[in-house]
Amino acid sequence: MKTQLNFANDYLQGAHPNILKRMMETNQVEMTGYGTDPITESAIERIREACDCPQAEVRFLMGGTQTNQIMIDSLLQSYQGVIAAKTGHVSVHEAGAIEFGGHKVLELDTADGKLNAQQIKETIEDYWADGNHEHMVMPGMVYISQPTELGTLYSKSELEAIAHVCKEHEVKLFVDGARLAYALACPENDVTLADLAQLCDAFYIGGTKCGAMFGEAVVIPNPRLLPYMTTIIKQHGALLAKGRLLGIQFDELFKDHLYDTIGQDAITDANQIRQACKRAGLPLYFENPTNQIFCLVTKEQMEKLSEKVVFSFWEKYDDELTVIRFATSWSTRKEDVEALCQVIESL
Amino acid sequence: MKTQLNFANDYLQGAHPNILKRMMETNQVEMTGYGTDPITESAIERIREACDCPQAEVRFLMGGTQTNQIMIDSLLQSYQGVIAAKTGHVSVHEAGAIEFGGHKVLELDTADGKLNAQQIKETIEDYWADGNHEHMVMPGMVYISQPTELGTLYSKSELEAIAHVCKEHEVKLFVDGARLAYALACPENDVTLADLAQLCDAFYIGGTKCGAMFGEAVVIPNPRLLPYMTTIIKQHGALLAKGRLLGIQFDELFKDHLYDTIGQDAITDANQIRQACKRAGLPLYFENPTNQIFCLVTKEQMEKLSEKVVFSFWEKYDDELTVIRFATSWSTRKEDVEALCQVIESL
Amino acid sequence: MKTQLNFANDYLQGAHPNILKRMMETNQVEMTGYGTDPITESAIERIREACDCPQAEVRFLMGGTQTNQIMIDSLLQSYQGVIAAKTGHVSVHEAGAIEFGGHKVLELDTADGKLNAQQIKETIEDYWADGNHEHMVMPGMVYISQPTELGTLYSKSELEAIAHVCKEHEVKLFVDGARLAYALACPENDVTLADLAQLCDAFYIGGTKCGAMFGEAVVIPNPRLLPYMTTIIKQHGALLAKGRLLGIQFDELFKDHLYDTIGQDAITDANQIRQACKRAGLPLYFENPTNQIFCLVTKEQMEKLSEKVVFSFWEKYDDELTVIRFATSWSTRKEDVEALCQVIESL
Amino acid sequence: MKTQLNFANDYLQGAHPNILKRMMETNQVEMTGYGTDPITESAIERIREACDCPQAEVRFLMGGTQTNQIMIDSLLQSYQGVIAAKTGHVSVHEAGAIEFGGHKVLELDTADGKLNAQQIKETIEDYWADGNHEHMVMPGMVYISQPTELGTLYSKSELEAIAHVCKEHEVKLFVDGARLAYALACPENDVTLADLAQLCDAFYIGGTKCGAMFGEAVVIPNPRLLPYMTTIIKQHGALLAKGRLLGIQFDELFKDHLYDTIGQDAITDANQIRQACKRAGLPLYFENPTNQIFCLVTKEQMEKLSEKVVFSFWEKYDDELTVIRFATSWSTRKEDVEALCQVIESL
Repeated sequence: MKTQLNFANDYLQGAHPNILKRMMETNQVEMTGYGTDPITESAIERIREACDCPQAEVRFLMGGTQTNQIMIDSLLQSYQGVIAAKTGHVSVHEAGAIEFGGHKVLELDTADGKLNAQQIKETIEDYWADGNHEHMVMPGMVYISQPTELGTLYSKSELEAIAHVCKEHEVKLFVDGARLAYALACPENDVTLADLAQLCDAFYIGGTKCGAMFGEAVVIPNPRLLPYMTTIIKQHGALLAKGRLLGIQFDELFKDHLYDTIGQDAITDANQIRQACKRAGLPLYFENPTNQIFCLVTKEQMEKLSEKVVFSFWEKYDDELTVIRFATSWSTRKEDVEALCQVIESL
Repeated sequence: MKTQLNFANDYLQGAHPNILKRMMETNQVEMTGYGTDPITESAIERIREACDCPQAEVRFLMGGTQTNQIMIDSLLQSYQGVIAAKTGHVSVHEAGAIEFGGHKVLELDTADGKLNAQQIKETIEDYWADGNHEHMVMPGMVYISQPTELGTLYSKSELEAIAHVCKEHEVKLFVDGARLAYALACPENDVTLADLAQLCDAFYIGGTKCGAMFGEAVVIPNPRLLPYMTTIIKQHGALLAKGRLLGIQFDELFKDHLYDTIGQDAITDANQIRQACKRAGLPLYFENPTNQIFCLVTKEQMEKLSEKVVFSFWEKYDDELTVIRFATSWSTRKEDVEALCQVIESL
Repeated sequence: MKTQLNFANDYLQGAHPNILKRMMETNQVEMTGYGTDPITESAIERIREACDCPQAEVRFLMGGTQTNQIMIDSLLQSYQGVIAAKTGHVSVHEAGAIEFGGHKVLELDTADGKLNAQQIKETIEDYWADGNHEHMVMPGMVYISQPTELGTLYSKSELEAIAHVCKEHEVKLFVDGARLAYALACPENDVTLADLAQLCDAFYIGGTKCGAMFGEAVVIPNPRLLPYMTTIIKQHGALLAKGRLLGIQFDELFKDHLYDTIGQDAITDANQIRQACKRAGLPLYFENPTNQIFCLVTKEQMEKLSEKVVFSFWEKYDDELTVIRFATSWSTRKEDVEALCQVIESL
Repeated sequence: MKTQLNFANDYLQGAHPNILKRMMETNQVEMTGYGTDPITESAIERIREACDCPQAEVRFLMGGTQTNQIMIDSLLQSYQGVIAAKTGHVSVHEAGAIEFGGHKVLELDTADGKLNAQQIKETIEDYWADGNHEHMVMPGMVYISQPTELGTLYSKSELEAIAHVCKEHEVKLFVDGARLAYALACPENDVTLADLAQLCDAFYIGGTKCGAMFGEAVVIPNPRLLPYMTTIIKQHGALLAKGRLLGIQFDELFKDHLYDTIGQDAITDANQIRQACKRAGLPLYFENPTNQIFCLVTKEQMEKLSEKVVFSFWEKYDDELTVIRFATSWSTRKEDVEALCQVIESL
């Protein structure tokens, strides 16, 4: 039986082969635990170099929710909240992990998943101007994703404007890069790792969705910002005994530009699918240049698609139309992309 | 010097004289602590009777935020959130006290500060229908205020509809009655204490804004719902050593219908001010029958008012108009109401 | 029927008459809320003066557990714990209020309820010397009580030694003064309010057990230590709407040396009872100079006492003897002390 | 250069080769996330079978601290604490992870790392007998490890006695099995997986230290005990996107009795080292039958050992002697054991 094409999400397979190979090769080597091993040291150095930030504190965690929870909890004061898009991962899809740490997510409306400097500025200034602000949650941090949940990208000038507002108001800026490889690889993108290191208080480079088995690399450009990070991580139940496993993954991802290659392949695939949608007259829900393609389909189209392809239901658009999502990734097979394009064009 | 008229809020003075008198009379009597004294027992009995709920667990706490924090924290499971109006006190004005307990406030838009059964039903059903709901915050409770932050009232049939949705979906219903005396006293109101006891999982009868020095009386109709309440209260830093002080206040407020009288006086005053606004052509921001009067004033009117009256700035309506609030209470003087009406009519 | 003598604890009655009188006099005056009123301002000034610390941040909270919870939570980093005596209030009698804020109490054994500088130093140094310290709870604060739970006192030199260790290791020092009046009034005591202000990062002056209805005054000598304190207090559900009530109490307690007088009377009473115990041959469980008298009684003595006096059971000493406690306070009547002495001497 | 022999701990290498092999074989297969894949289903079935508990809820988490944190947090009520040995992992080596969830660890002294039924019974009964118990932390759970931190084992009758006390007092029983393979493999052990499933409310089968790369398998015999477990795990930042990775590891460990074999090899090695210590006259610090060997060495012996072997410093015994630890594991090489024995015997 022919299995279906699967474009449901970007974590369908295991890990990039280089990572598995390295795990095999080093499996028997005895190393110290908790990230004190030489491979982790090497991975840290590679990331510092990629970010052009030799002094950065770099930490490896296991997943996105864990990373957001720990970073928000440790960067905020106990009485502060985090500004985020209403569609942001921390607003919707983390089962209350941020509130578990005691912090409110201050949700703002956006058209395309992107916060802008002006609305952030107003939110912060409104807080301080309110006569009752001492009774309200103080904005202490801005959380954005690059790319966003909706696949859209911040331009460098947009990010600079946000960073400027944050600095001006002593509010931290944190960037969730769960899918960062797919931002970095877009021709439209002008935000580099070095830019992130210059503009943010902290950000993370996604592994889980970008070629790793699991793992996210947190970069904190100012190493004095969060002392005692090991204890903070341990207290959150997030310190991996065999830290080498995280080290291996990022050492491989940042060797020979693998992280770039992974992103580029997925973007090429995504663009090919976008072209097919356009040719087939399937409207894109909104334009975005990254690895997620959101398009509108009728009930009949959705049914027909379902027979051959696994995709994501995103949301109902109206009684007739539905928004669906295809995702490409480092592991997407070229032949599957072509097969999907044929299916789309035959709808 | 003539002091200004003060209608800024409903906690401007100390306590109803009966309460102070009782404190004086009983001051030297030695009593056991933490609410185990006979006056507290008497107050509990009076409240059970007023609620027509002889088996209810009744607890006295010190303030509204504390009460909301403790009740939400103890009624919810750790992974649940509380549905509230975006304008609700727990959404805006409690400095993150709910999130401090680990819970997300699931904020819904409302026209007039009131949630309706339909939107609650949809919120809960949307949660369970979402394929990703396990990654989202489960609605575990509905929080409403009677009257709302905007002074509006739920009718009995509205409350019944909400209670029905809650029961149907095994979601708790909690009513914040910080200003409950001013709801109970409205001719428009058809929700009694007994109705609240029948429809809610818990509610509180406000003292601070309704004649007490401080204190709120929590009513939990099913006494098996929250065992070990004393420990829960203590753990939240909210167990008053001299519990008698809370007992005295509610024993007095519920003696000889004082709580009713307090409410009625404030409503009479509020209605007199509403009439003056109407006569003066000051538009009411929205109609409500309780002790808060929201009206629209021009810059010139606001300036003129400020010379003689202390009131609350609510929010800017547009470039020309501002929403301001007058509040009456148990302690409002008749002569001040008349003076205020004259000022309003002379704008 | 003659009621029993009551020496069960130090919060049996209401408040010192001066406080009630002031509440009556100011009851009708309209004041702003949340501690922004002029009486609170005056109380703050009086406390600053009594502590010889004009710049101190002074805050009024409602009870001891609440105060310990808020101060420990706000002075510690999220990953730090607080060193305390195993018999300390935060270790035993706060129903997990410290852990509710996320912090471990690092309990140390003591002979008499008092920590000493040497054991604190060793605890901190052992932490840092441990190869696994990053996996352990970092000591961030020392919590002591003056007087201790067992009524014993720290001398100035003992306190200086502890403060020295704390400064040296960048660990905060916090003193719980729930019964501070009864320490200050002892002839044996050489630690003044000004000493506390010089040696501690924060301490509180107890009201509840020392003449107030309720309330504790937190003194933070360095006002830059804890910015945004109002929001912190609000978030913990501890901001009293009618802050004036706390202001009145401490304004009265610190007017005309009332706090001193209150303490002295209770100490005179306690010493009289101690003498009676000695004359009657009742061994004191341990010597202490403050308002709590711990003594050993046989079963027969305990039974006989119980007929005429309410006292506290402390703990079983052995099969024959029991430790019981008498407490005096600001409200103890001279005639009751004499009656108790007679009862004791007739055992 | 000849590297040193390494007996520092039981997580020095990667994973058992079978696990890596399976990861390679399945790497390209597309599977759904978050533990909904067929390999995870198979692993769950194998564990249910090994525990003779077909209805058990089985969940895979990433590490020991995370597992203890989540299970303690979800099994306890908010106002309850967990009873543990003072030497227990949750008492000492989890950086406050339990307190981060809001719970106190109620630490009891033990001679050998093992709690006994009698002291647990007394602790619980003392709590309820205390007149002030409402102000104290209610014991809600007993946490023990099999084997303990000190390598000792609970016998079946000891475990039954503890379980009996727990049931009698409605207190949960949770067993930390981080090194469970090394307990199960001891000839001295009479506690099977099926016994654990019958006697505990929850326990976990350690992977990290027993052949896995990472991962622990939680077994909850009564599947109705903790509904909404996925959300609880997600909220704690512990839901692995590619859940298959955990599934693969436990599917392999429980295939063809691999988990048993792993344990047996390590125990054989440990016993060989114990014999060498005895022959060399190195006193064992205390007898235990599992994979950790604690022995006493003089300064000279320690120095000599250090040149050839990596081991753990445990604690200073006195001015002359030190307690050190050797650990064996699934990955210990026979030739290294022999070399270590020679070194020991030549001290």
